[in-house]
Amino acid sequence: MKPLFNFEEANMPEEVRGILYGQDILSVSQFNKDVIEYVFTRTLEMREMVQKQGTADLLKGKVAAFIFYEPSTRTSSSFIAATQRLGGGIIPITSGVSFSSVSKGETLEDTMRVLQQYADVIVLRHPQIGAAKRAAAAANVPVINAGDGPGEHPTQALLDLFTIRDELGKIDGLKVAMVGDLRYGRTVHSLTRLLMQYDVKLRFVSPEILRLPLNLMNQVIDAKIDVRETHNIADVIDDVDVLYMTRVQKERFTDIEQYESVKDYYVLGPELMAKAKEKMIVMHPLPRVGEIDEAIDDDPRSGWFRQAQNGMFVRMTLLAGVLGRA
Amino acid sequence: MKPLFNFEEANMPEEVRGILYGQDILSVSQFNKDVIEYVFTRTLEMREMVQKQGTADLLKGKVAAFIFYEPSTRTSSSFIAATQRLGGGIIPITSGVSFSSVSKGETLEDTMRVLQQYADVIVLRHPQIGAAKRAAAAANVPVINAGDGPGEHPTQALLDLFTIRDELGKIDGLKVAMVGDLRYGRTVHSLTRLLMQYDVKLRFVSPEILRLPLNLMNQVIDAKIDVRETHNIADVIDDVDVLYMTRVQKERFTDIEQYESVKDYYVLGPELMAKAKEKMIVMHPLPRVGEIDEAIDDDPRSGWFRQAQNGMFVRMTLLAGVLGRA
Amino acid sequence: MKPLFNFEEANMPEEVRGILYGQDILSVSQFNKDVIEYVFTRTLEMREMVQKQGTADLLKGKVAAFIFYEPSTRTSSSFIAATQRLGGGIIPITSGVSFSSVSKGETLEDTMRVLQQYADVIVLRHPQIGAAKRAAAAANVPVINAGDGPGEHPTQALLDLFTIRDELGKIDGLKVAMVGDLRYGRTVHSLTRLLMQYDVKLRFVSPEILRLPLNLMNQVIDAKIDVRETHNIADVIDDVDVLYMTRVQKERFTDIEQYESVKDYYVLGPELMAKAKEKMIVMHPLPRVGEIDEAIDDDPRSGWFRQAQNGMFVRMTLLAGVLGRA
Repeated sequence: MKPLFNFEEANMPEEVRGILYGQDILSVSQFNKDVIEYVFTRTLEMREMVQKQGTADLLKGKVAAFIFYEPSTRTSSSFIAATQRLGGGIIPITSGVSFSSVSKGETLEDTMRVLQQYADVIVLRHPQIGAAKRAAAAANVPVINAGDGPGEHPTQALLDLFTIRDELGKIDGLKVAMVGDLRYGRTVHSLTRLLMQYDVKLRFVSPEILRLPLNLMNQVIDAKIDVRETHNIADVIDDVDVLYMTRVQKERFTDIEQYESVKDYYVLGPELMAKAKEKMIVMHPLPRVGEIDEAIDDDPRSGWFRQAQNGMFVRMTLLAGVLGRA
Repeated sequence: MKPLFNFEEANMPEEVRGILYGQDILSVSQFNKDVIEYVFTRTLEMREMVQKQGTADLLKGKVAAFIFYEPSTRTSSSFIAATQRLGGGIIPITSGVSFSSVSKGETLEDTMRVLQQYADVIVLRHPQIGAAKRAAAAANVPVINAGDGPGEHPTQALLDLFTIRDELGKIDGLKVAMVGDLRYGRTVHSLTRLLMQYDVKLRFVSPEILRLPLNLMNQVIDAKIDVRETHNIADVIDDVDVLYMTRVQKERFTDIEQYESVKDYYVLGPELMAKAKEKMIVMHPLPRVGEIDEAIDDDPRSGWFRQAQNGMFVRMTLLAGVLGRA
Repeated sequence: MKPLFNFEEANMPEEVRGILYGQDILSVSQFNKDVIEYVFTRTLEMREMVQKQGTADLLKGKVAAFIFYEPSTRTSSSFIAATQRLGGGIIPITSGVSFSSVSKGETLEDTMRVLQQYADVIVLRHPQIGAAKRAAAAANVPVINAGDGPGEHPTQALLDLFTIRDELGKIDGLKVAMVGDLRYGRTVHSLTRLLMQYDVKLRFVSPEILRLPLNLMNQVIDAKIDVRETHNIADVIDDVDVLYMTRVQKERFTDIEQYESVKDYYVLGPELMAKAKEKMIVMHPLPRVGEIDEAIDDDPRSGWFRQAQNGMFVRMTLLAGVLGRA
C-alpha cells in the first residue's frame, strides 16, 4: 500500500532554482522558457505518479494555507488536491473569510504575517488587482497568486500552456485563437504573455467592445507575432491548432441588442467543429455557461476537462518547487 | 505509534465487488442481502480498528471530495472523519458552494466532471431530488449520495440497519416502529425499503397528515410484511424491538390546533420508556429538537449516539468499498 | 524525507497528567505553575521539531474536530496547523455552522455528543460565555475552549505567558503593562489571572470607562501584587518589561468626543518606543487595527508575530497533552 514512486532526484538547475525555490509565484512574467521547460518535465512526473499510486510524500513536513477572499471551488479544490496528493498538510480558509478577522479590519499584510507563522506556503485568491504582490511583499514564505481580480492568474496560464504542449506535442509553430471576452479575461492576458515567448501565430476573436486591451495588443505586435483580430469563430476555425474559449458575459454590454446580435458568434457546437482540423484542441478555463455545446463533449479534441486535471499536476509541481522539493 | 491493524485481506466476493467497487452509491435499492452482509462484516472490522488504533492506511493514495450544496455538519463531519481515519486526503467543499462557481451558472454535471479530475471519489449533498443520479451519470469516479433533497440518503439507511443488527443481534423476527413524519422523511423511506428484504413486522406511527406515502405503503403490503399504522407511540411502545423516532415539524400543519392536539403523541420520555421492553433500542437520525426527552439519554436502550458513530464506520466501509480497498 | 525527531519520552508527572490527559481545557484557572512549566518545556520541543522537520507523527491515529460558531481565521488556522503538524486528522467546521444543523435547533450539548463519535478531541469557539463549559459537560472527549464570547480563551493566555518567558527568560520580577480595553478584553483577564501566580508588577492602562473590572482588580490586590492603574501609555513605557496592547474600540464609547480625546493615548509608535527599555517586548493578541504603528514592526522588541507562532506550538502541546501524547 505504501507509495513507491521515485521522483527523479530534485536536481533543479541553478537558474531554475533561483526562480522557484523559496520564491513567490505572482505573474507569468517570472517564467522564462527554461523554467517553463523544467516545470513541464516535473509535471509529467507528477501525472505519472498520480496515475501509478495516487499520492506521494514529497511535501511531508510541509503545511500549506489556502486563503480565498472570494470563493472559487475549482481553483481551491485543485490546489488542495495537489497538496493532499503530495502528503502536505492543509489549512483551508476557503469561505467565510470576509466575516472573519478581515471584517475586524485587519490588513491583508498582517493576515499574511500571521499565516506565515503557521504555514510553509500561502495560496491567495483576492478580488483586488495587485493584492498578491502586496501579500508577497509582506510575507516571508512563498505566496502563490491564485487570481487577484482582473490582475493575473499565473498558475492557470501555466496549466494552459502545459495542456497545449501536452496535447499537441509542441508550442512553436502553432496557431492559437483566443475567443470571447478578451478585454477583461485575465486568463487570456496571462496566456498571451506566455505564448509571446514562442514562435506562434495568434488570432483574437471577440465582439468589438471586448477586444484585447491596446497595450497588450501593442506588445504582441512589438514581439513580431503573426497576429489578426476578428469577430467570429467561423473566421478562424478551419486552421487553428488551439481554440481557447472564454465566456462573453451579457453584463459587459450596455446595448442588449448588440449582445443579441453577436452572441452566437461565440458559441461552439458540432457544426463549427466539423470545420476544424482533425488534430487540434479546444480549451476553456471553466466554468462554461453555454458557450460550448455539450454535444461536443465526447469529441477527442475537447480538452477542457483534461486541462482542469493538468491544473492539479502543474500546481503540484509549483508547490513542490517553491518549497524546494521539485 | 504506527498503526498495525491488519484488515482481513480484501476478498470481496465477485457479486459484492460488482455492486461496490468503482460503483456509485445512490439508493438503497442497490443493496441486496449479500452486499449488506459484506458491508456489515467489514464495518465491524472498521470499528475494531478505530477502537484499537484510531486510524489506518487503507485509503492511502486516495483523495475524496466532499461537495455539500446545503450544509450538513453531521453528515459532512462523519464522511470527513471516515476518510481521515482511513488515511485518505480530503477536499472539503462544505460551505459557500452557492456563492462559488455554482452561482456562476455551472451545471452540476460540469462540476462533477471537474471534481473527478482531482478526486478519486465524490460525496455529494444536494437539495434536489435526483441530483445524485445526475451527478453520477456525469462523473467517471464513484459518487456517493449523501442526501438529495426529499430523495434518498442511502448511507443513513445502511447505518440504521447496521445499528439494529449490532444492538439486537439480528434483523429477522424484529418488530420495528417508525415514528413521526413518515410522509416526508427520506430516512424512514430508505430504511423501510431496506427492511422489506427481511422478515420483520413494521409499525408506522404518525399524525394523519404525515402518514407513509401510499405507494410505499402498497409496496410494504405487497411484500407481505406484517404492518399496521397508528397515531400514537403509546399504542406500540410495549412490544417493539426498535423505535425509530423522527421529528414532527410544526410547519407541516396548516391547522395549528391540529398540531397542538397531537404533538405530545410523538414525544418520548421516561413514562413511555417504562412500558418498553427491556431489550429494545430507540433510534433517531438526529438532530432531535424536543421529540426525545434528555431524561432518557442515559437509558441503555437509547441508541442514537451509538447510531451516529456507526455512521462513521459504515461510511469507512463504503468509501473503501467503492475504491476497491474493502 | 521521513521525520526523525524524537520527542523525549512522554513522562508526564502524575500531577500534570491528572490536569491534562483526557481533560478539557476550559479556563486558565486549571493551570498551576507545575503544569505551566511542563507545557512550556514541551512547547520548546514542539518548536524545535517544527524548525527541524516541519511535522511529526505524534497525533497519528487521532482526529480533531474544529467547530467554530463564529469564524476566527487566526485561531482556527493555528489549531488546524497544530494538528496537521502533529500528523492528526482534521474535521474543519469553521464556517457555515449557523446555517447548518444548529439552525435546525439542535442544542450545543447534542452537537458535542455527536462530534465525539467522530473525533478524539473537540476545539470549540462560541459567542456565548459558558458555552465551553456546557460543551465539556456534555462531551466525553476533551473539549478545548478556543474562546467563548466574553468568557475565557485559555490557550491564548498560555501562549501569551509562554511568549513572555521565552522572550525575557523569566516571569518572576517582571513589570507587565496591559493597555487598551481592559474591561471587556477576555485576553487581558485570562493573562492577568495567570500572572497572579507569579511575582510580577502589573500596570493597567485604559480609558476611564474601560478599566479592569472591579472584581478582577480586587483579586489582584488580594494577591498582594504591586499594581497601578493609569490612563496613558506614556506613564508606563519607560520601565515596563512587557507592554501588552489591545484595541480600544470606538463602539465602546457613548460620547464620541471622549473617544477622540483619549484615543491617541493608546497608539504605540516610534516616539513612545524610543522611551522604552532596550530589553522589553510588545505583544498584541491581533488583529491590530491602528493601535500599533507599522513603523515599529521591524523593532526587535515587537513580538506579536512571534507570539502568534507560539500559539501554534502551545496548541500542539495542549492537543498532544489532552490526548496523552505529550
